[in-house]
Amino acid sequence: MSVELSSSNSFEQLKRIESSKIFQGAVIAIIILSALTIGAKTYDLPPIVEQSLTVLDNAITLFFLVEILFRFAACPTKRRFLMDGWNLFDTLVVIGSLIPLDNSEAVLLGRLLRVFRVLRLVSVVPELRFLINSLLKAIPRMGYIALLMFIIFYIYAAIGSMFFASVDEELWGDVAISMLTLFRVATFEDWTDVMYATMADYPLSWIFYLTFIFLTAFVFLNMMIGAILEVMGEEQNAEAAQKAHDERDQIVQQLQSVQRKLDELSEKLER
Amino acid sequence: MSVELSSSNSFEQLKRIESSKIFQGAVIAIIILSALTIGAKTYDLPPIVEQSLTVLDNAITLFFLVEILFRFAACPTKRRFLMDGWNLFDTLVVIGSLIPLDNSEAVLLGRLLRVFRVLRLVSVVPELRFLINSLLKAIPRMGYIALLMFIIFYIYAAIGSMFFASVDEELWGDVAISMLTLFRVATFEDWTDVMYATMADYPLSWIFYLTFIFLTAFVFLNMMIGAILEVMGEEQNAEAAQKAHDERDQIVQQLQSVQRKLDELSEKLER
Amino acid sequence: MSVELSSSNSFEQLKRIESSKIFQGAVIAIIILSALTIGAKTYDLPPIVEQSLTVLDNAITLFFLVEILFRFAACPTKRRFLMDGWNLFDTLVVIGSLIPLDNSEAVLLGRLLRVFRVLRLVSVVPELRFLINSLLKAIPRMGYIALLMFIIFYIYAAIGSMFFASVDEELWGDVAISMLTLFRVATFEDWTDVMYATMADYPLSWIFYLTFIFLTAFVFLNMMIGAILEVMGEEQNAEAAQKAHDERDQIVQQLQSVQRKLDELSEKLER
Amino acid sequence: MSVELSSSNSFEQLKRIESSKIFQGAVIAIIILSALTIGAKTYDLPPIVEQSLTVLDNAITLFFLVEILFRFAACPTKRRFLMDGWNLFDTLVVIGSLIPLDNSEAVLLGRLLRVFRVLRLVSVVPELRFLINSLLKAIPRMGYIALLMFIIFYIYAAIGSMFFASVDEELWGDVAISMLTLFRVATFEDWTDVMYATMADYPLSWIFYLTFIFLTAFVFLNMMIGAILEVMGEEQNAEAAQKAHDERDQIVQQLQSVQRKLDELSEKLER
Repeated sequence: MSVELSSSNSFEQLKRIESSKIFQGAVIAIIILSALTIGAKTYDLPPIVEQSLTVLDNAITLFFLVEILFRFAACPTKRRFLMDGWNLFDTLVVIGSLIPLDNSEAVLLGRLLRVFRVLRLVSVVPELRFLINSLLKAIPRMGYIALLMFIIFYIYAAIGSMFFASVDEELWGDVAISMLTLFRVATFEDWTDVMYATMADYPLSWIFYLTFIFLTAFVFLNMMIGAILEVMGEEQNAEAAQKAHDERDQIVQQLQSVQRKLDELSEKLER
Repeated sequence: MSVELSSSNSFEQLKRIESSKIFQGAVIAIIILSALTIGAKTYDLPPIVEQSLTVLDNAITLFFLVEILFRFAACPTKRRFLMDGWNLFDTLVVIGSLIPLDNSEAVLLGRLLRVFRVLRLVSVVPELRFLINSLLKAIPRMGYIALLMFIIFYIYAAIGSMFFASVDEELWGDVAISMLTLFRVATFEDWTDVMYATMADYPLSWIFYLTFIFLTAFVFLNMMIGAILEVMGEEQNAEAAQKAHDERDQIVQQLQSVQRKLDELSEKLER
Repeated sequence: MSVELSSSNSFEQLKRIESSKIFQGAVIAIIILSALTIGAKTYDLPPIVEQSLTVLDNAITLFFLVEILFRFAACPTKRRFLMDGWNLFDTLVVIGSLIPLDNSEAVLLGRLLRVFRVLRLVSVVPELRFLINSLLKAIPRMGYIALLMFIIFYIYAAIGSMFFASVDEELWGDVAISMLTLFRVATFEDWTDVMYATMADYPLSWIFYLTFIFLTAFVFLNMMIGAILEVMGEEQNAEAAQKAHDERDQIVQQLQSVQRKLDELSEKLER
Repeated sequence: MSVELSSSNSFEQLKRIESSKIFQGAVIAIIILSALTIGAKTYDLPPIVEQSLTVLDNAITLFFLVEILFRFAACPTKRRFLMDGWNLFDTLVVIGSLIPLDNSEAVLLGRLLRVFRVLRLVSVVPELRFLINSLLKAIPRMGYIALLMFIIFYIYAAIGSMFFASVDEELWGDVAISMLTLFRVATFEDWTDVMYATMADYPLSWIFYLTFIFLTAFVFLNMMIGAILEVMGEEQNAEAAQKAHDERDQIVQQLQSVQRKLDELSEKLER
């Protein structure tokens, strides 16, 4: 029983340490340090600095490993720890950093994985985690609009590569390249150059571009308006409406009690 | 009578098959396959693949023909089938694919018509059909704004081609080309190049461009705000307002019953 | 008295003609014809067509003159006719077309004035007139934001021409040219070319551009949000709120009548 | 006591002068004059005009010094005068103009400080001051979104300089330059040129640009929607809701009085 108690005590202690402000601050500081070393490596540095950066990098990897094991130990239900997407992401990033890097290919992959350590800032700061969650919730409502946009792009890309492939192989060679070119047109990036080139061969091709721009802009605009309205419909005034409903409910109940009392009075008079 | 019954039975069976998930899924799958063959044809392919694509294309055309006949047979009122815009669109696309293509001109037209098969995805997936319908509903409310925009473009284009035609025939040659150039300016696409060219001859022509940009941006902004407000006014809180109204109505009726009871009490006391 | 009557009758008749659909339609048709002749003149035309266009132009001028005199005659209070901005605008455009054009300078001015005839479409179609009026109403609420924007542009332009005039006289020569360059930067039009040029001499000048872009974008965004909210606050749910208020008022009055009746009952019992 | 009275009288007089429309108008006029002299100095001017501008500049500096001393004298609590951010800003700008300028370096600094005098317009016109205050209030709500944006930019910049530094040292040399390049991509400024350059070496690098554009656009869009909703939630209908609540409250109180009267009636009947 004493073992259980001590275990329970140490467990409590772990939790207390984990949720302490100093621990959280230290983790955030190390993540920022990690981000800075990643940034520093993109500069040309003297060999000594580069070596010390490698040592620092290894120290950070070790710290992250210890931290994740510590968080795992402090979690009461081990299964839930692994079910949480943020913990899983943290674990994967830390394990990815542990893989030994020998040949140059793997070095690039290793550096790429280290970049994602910066994203750990999102998983550690609760406000950012909340922000990401609310952004993720916004994705499904854009699903069918995205599908519609894709269909518009696909049809215009198919028509574009059908007619304009002979004009400019680089821009309209096949349906995939055409979609990239159309995305460029949708961002208004030198789209008149693209248009003037095809208008030399097909003088009416401005219809192609203008209908495409109007369609995408129109669908995009309506998507934005739809998004604003949907979110509004959900959140807006929900609290105020509930309060008003409760107050009206109270009035109805008071009236019912008035009616009951009147009935009693009536009965008394009859007697 | 047995014939009638069997006919009615087979009709029911047709409807059941048509509305089954397997049938719907098969149609969607074939449409996507059709879209992929259209995309594949934009690549340079070995002759064998190209031939098998043509065979596949014919098979898809046949499938679409059978499907539309089947849907027509499963529809209880034949007239309504042809009144529905989506069915009409489907029928036209399928009939368009049946026209035999001999010379090279017609081949291009045939390929163009096949591209619109991808749009059948919109007519088959109910969510997309709903989306398109709601987008179509948004068009009339933008009608007069579009007319106003056209008037602004026309006036600026007329002035532009009046003054700047001598500067750059390619950009300001006539009123139609000028409108295209102004649309380019409205999308901010290399608009300073256009402006600097005319400012060499007309140093004050920046007034022309700045007033045009401010006018179009201002009208566009107000159109967007108007659209948001209009949609909002229609949909927003209609349900909540109705509920509040019903509850207040209930209170009024209860109060009337209280007053009636008081009148009765009063009468009883008088007696 | 018979004269008065007949005058009143002819007046009534004038009004009836003026507000008839055929008259309105004819005016709109002539305005569109006028717009088309303006557009046609921007093309290179054979002399015969050009001459007939001039004849047509004179006929339109005459029609507009007759129309405005007719509208003036049909207006019951002559003073109010000239007080209305739209009528004044129409009159000015028509009078402007009457001025004889001899030398080439005046020809250009005359053609310019004829372009504004297209704007008469706005003064004749009530929906467009309503749209323009609502757009004009939106201007004052943007006044102080515009002033703030101007101050931001002026300060950055002054700093820009102070430092960068030596880099590129064409872009940063004086405070006016600098403001035009900054407007170009605000529309993202080849702004990096402008920045890279100054960064060669002043490596930290990216701070100048980024703070400027963020400031203008931030002020613009807040202006847009402000505009949406302001219009919303005015229009939104005003009707629904009034209805709810009226219903609650009715409840309060019913309750007062209940209280009065109770007081009477109480008095009767006391007796 | 007479001294105190006279002091109090002169104090009152100072306040009356300070808040008078003539004084306010004079200050605004001088600020605009100051702005014009700053603008005028960016042009090439004959020496006489330049000298008179310097004299005018000194006169304006003197006026501002007198004005700030006057405002300080007219302020009842001297400590609060210095606590107010706008007064502090005014004082700093005026003191900055007083520093004697000898060498050329300091001249540029002095001219830079004089530019900020234009900002005094904001501190003097109450409507602009209110606008700035409301803009400042909007900053914190954008804090975490800005942090998230910075993380996205940092990660993409680190990846970009890792892979593309060999392609174009000027654009992807280190993490700082890469962030500037990414900001350029986010404004759609010749972003396809940047992409086509890296696609020559890394054909799949379009994924890098498209995911970046979609991410930033998506986060930006949601930020804007969030901002609209937040401001709306605060301001919207708050007054109307309060009024409705007060009216319902009144109904509840009336009902309680009705119940009390009924209880009294009941008691009377029992007796």
